[in-house]
Amino acid sequence: MLEELKEKVYRANIDLVKHGLVIFTWGNVSGIDREKGLMVIKPSGVDYDVMTPDDMVVIDIRTGEKVEGKLKPSSDTPTHLALYRAWPEIGGVVHTHSTYATAWSQAGIDLPNIGTTHADYFHKAIPCTPDMTEPEVTNDYELETGNVIIKRFEDMNPMHTPGVLVKNHGPFSWGKDPHDAVHNAVVMEQVAKMAFIAYQVNPGLTMNPLLIEKHYLRKHGPGAYYGQ
Amino acid sequence: MLEELKEKVYRANIDLVKHGLVIFTWGNVSGIDREKGLMVIKPSGVDYDVMTPDDMVVIDIRTGEKVEGKLKPSSDTPTHLALYRAWPEIGGVVHTHSTYATAWSQAGIDLPNIGTTHADYFHKAIPCTPDMTEPEVTNDYELETGNVIIKRFEDMNPMHTPGVLVKNHGPFSWGKDPHDAVHNAVVMEQVAKMAFIAYQVNPGLTMNPLLIEKHYLRKHGPGAYYGQ
Amino acid sequence: MLEELKEKVYRANIDLVKHGLVIFTWGNVSGIDREKGLMVIKPSGVDYDVMTPDDMVVIDIRTGEKVEGKLKPSSDTPTHLALYRAWPEIGGVVHTHSTYATAWSQAGIDLPNIGTTHADYFHKAIPCTPDMTEPEVTNDYELETGNVIIKRFEDMNPMHTPGVLVKNHGPFSWGKDPHDAVHNAVVMEQVAKMAFIAYQVNPGLTMNPLLIEKHYLRKHGPGAYYGQ
Amino acid sequence: MLEELKEKVYRANIDLVKHGLVIFTWGNVSGIDREKGLMVIKPSGVDYDVMTPDDMVVIDIRTGEKVEGKLKPSSDTPTHLALYRAWPEIGGVVHTHSTYATAWSQAGIDLPNIGTTHADYFHKAIPCTPDMTEPEVTNDYELETGNVIIKRFEDMNPMHTPGVLVKNHGPFSWGKDPHDAVHNAVVMEQVAKMAFIAYQVNPGLTMNPLLIEKHYLRKHGPGAYYGQ
Repeated sequence: MLEELKEKVYRANIDLVKHGLVIFTWGNVSGIDREKGLMVIKPSGVDYDVMTPDDMVVIDIRTGEKVEGKLKPSSDTPTHLALYRAWPEIGGVVHTHSTYATAWSQAGIDLPNIGTTHADYFHKAIPCTPDMTEPEVTNDYELETGNVIIKRFEDMNPMHTPGVLVKNHGPFSWGKDPHDAVHNAVVMEQVAKMAFIAYQVNPGLTMNPLLIEKHYLRKHGPGAYYGQ
Repeated sequence: MLEELKEKVYRANIDLVKHGLVIFTWGNVSGIDREKGLMVIKPSGVDYDVMTPDDMVVIDIRTGEKVEGKLKPSSDTPTHLALYRAWPEIGGVVHTHSTYATAWSQAGIDLPNIGTTHADYFHKAIPCTPDMTEPEVTNDYELETGNVIIKRFEDMNPMHTPGVLVKNHGPFSWGKDPHDAVHNAVVMEQVAKMAFIAYQVNPGLTMNPLLIEKHYLRKHGPGAYYGQ
Repeated sequence: MLEELKEKVYRANIDLVKHGLVIFTWGNVSGIDREKGLMVIKPSGVDYDVMTPDDMVVIDIRTGEKVEGKLKPSSDTPTHLALYRAWPEIGGVVHTHSTYATAWSQAGIDLPNIGTTHADYFHKAIPCTPDMTEPEVTNDYELETGNVIIKRFEDMNPMHTPGVLVKNHGPFSWGKDPHDAVHNAVVMEQVAKMAFIAYQVNPGLTMNPLLIEKHYLRKHGPGAYYGQ
Repeated sequence: MLEELKEKVYRANIDLVKHGLVIFTWGNVSGIDREKGLMVIKPSGVDYDVMTPDDMVVIDIRTGEKVEGKLKPSSDTPTHLALYRAWPEIGGVVHTHSTYATAWSQAGIDLPNIGTTHADYFHKAIPCTPDMTEPEVTNDYELETGNVIIKRFEDMNPMHTPGVLVKNHGPFSWGKDPHDAVHNAVVMEQVAKMAFIAYQVNPGLTMNPLLIEKHYLRKHGPGAYYGQ
């Protein structure tokens, strides 16, 4: 079932490796079939070079139960499910431990919007979640990770700023499909690296807020004119 | 028409990928035929691995209108045009979001000439433009980006310092042809990386001004003796 | 003799190159056959691209004498032997001069546990050894390097934190077999890089101790649920 | 003439590219035939991917005149000659603009010996030359660059510390032959990167002087026991 989506989710996972965002079995991508209410996700701890589309695991979004697949799903499955349930616009979710975005997560501060590279994809600063509490870590940790992310976006549009830094952990990103979510993960890593360098060069740097609106809107606004 | 120039501009765009200066569809190169008054530029938002020389777009320099090409030109087309109109010596223009040069753009300060690697190609500090104003961002943003660059070079020779950092955005470079402009883009990224490291190692470093003149002139002066 | 172990140790050495942890002849991996009381280790100063499994050297763990092999063993052989003698749980040892872990060794401070990437593999901070004394350096330097490491782990479980930074020198790691020890070396390099960046971004960053326990235990605790 | 040496010098130049130390035509390697009094060096400004062993240029060490070769020698030829004349032990010289070593040159301070990776190859700090004076830059600049290096080694053994940082310019290294000189250039770049990171992590770091002697001597001293 869902052969096409499995293939897409598989490809998106492999793309994480190609873009240098994951080593070993770190990182996972999922995709969703909203009509059927099913999510397809990478299996847990399987090497990317032996993985096949058939290894993808199918999960019922409502119950969280496995519907198909011989392997256990990613241990981060409940986080993915929480995001799909909260945000009906998203069609793909990515989690990585990519170097610079993870370092910003460890730094524990929002990744500020200080350039047009950021503004082309993320409208606001990419927010960092607060410390998780003892109950959150002890009970249903992966589900609560999702809830902490959702809470952080209470006053933000997740489609306008499609990524988050989970404090002391690493980045999650999302998009309209798995491919788009991976694209956003690559951009997040790139802007995390640029922002690291920029603040070393000039700790007092400032962003021109006019550029944020201009660049975000020329790609995503009603009169967007970037691309074909 | 302009098959040879299209091929050159295509190759120069591909070289940006080979040199690691762009990912996805970020970045664009153009070239000019001064006699015919035409510019050839990369199409907007087309993947580098499916792009062909035929996809290049031909623009009338005077009017800015498309003369040939099935695709929309790069959204940065008006910036390229402004530079060609202002500076008759240049034959190629490049824009990238290369990591270190973009980080310096975000830092918002000039990239100082602190070594012979810089002085071999850029006579002065690579200047950073000032913040763009509301009218500049709102009306004809890409054209005004070109104007801001040109204004920054009022008292500088663009052929002696063939690059600029657009504040909070990224680098533009140019040269006698598209290949040369890409070469300068690679050097700018490299000297931006070196300067980042050098200032971390010694924030109080100083440059010997004698070396700037010597190195710039041994490659570009009347008695230049570098190369064959 | 020990053909299978030689092959494994050879592969693990080659993997160091593939993962970008060593250049030239820097770095060495060993493995152990506890029943026979023998260690297999890389020869000293042999290029990775001409090395074969047959070049691996067999050493008697008790006496430290060479039992088989036409080449001299790694000069770090006595360090490896000391660790195998002290810690019966380990089956493989790795030493590299990988860039970021070596830089932290030169910095001379413990590599703190500030993220789940670290906590997934290393329970505590990866400790840095103290300065070696004159007698330690002068007499049996490589053996004493092992002893200094062992002393540093007096109050720590080497299987829970399978790596160390030898001050002004570089990292050692270990694991249940040579492959596992290399895996831990790769992770150590990665978390060393992330921690370098994270502290540059926020020198006052803090780690949530709840996450350390959670992540370490979900992979290594009694109810571990990561992987297949 | 000197076909074997030309081949060696050619290979050593290509190795600079393979090790990531040069881009474009930056960098040059030479080798010497002491008996014949001749130096073989890379031509000036020739692309590495079209260069052949036959393009190498033969120079008379005493007179500095070209003896054979259809191309102009590297513009840094007089620097190489000065080092060969001053130091009879050396058989190969390398100059690059490798990223981290060049950044330290721009920083203008000695690259300190803070780890065994450094001490395995360089006995002391890799010294940085002082600012060059107006007469030095104006008259015979490349020859004076050599003289400035030689003066900096007045009280140092160039075979024990086979590298230098020319201030605001970049690294030179040398060795018993061209291959060895390239090896030292790779190590210099690596230790420059490590030292940059180490000082960012701990600006107050200290080196154990006992380790310098131990590591330098176990590879280069009378009782050296590293390697086969």
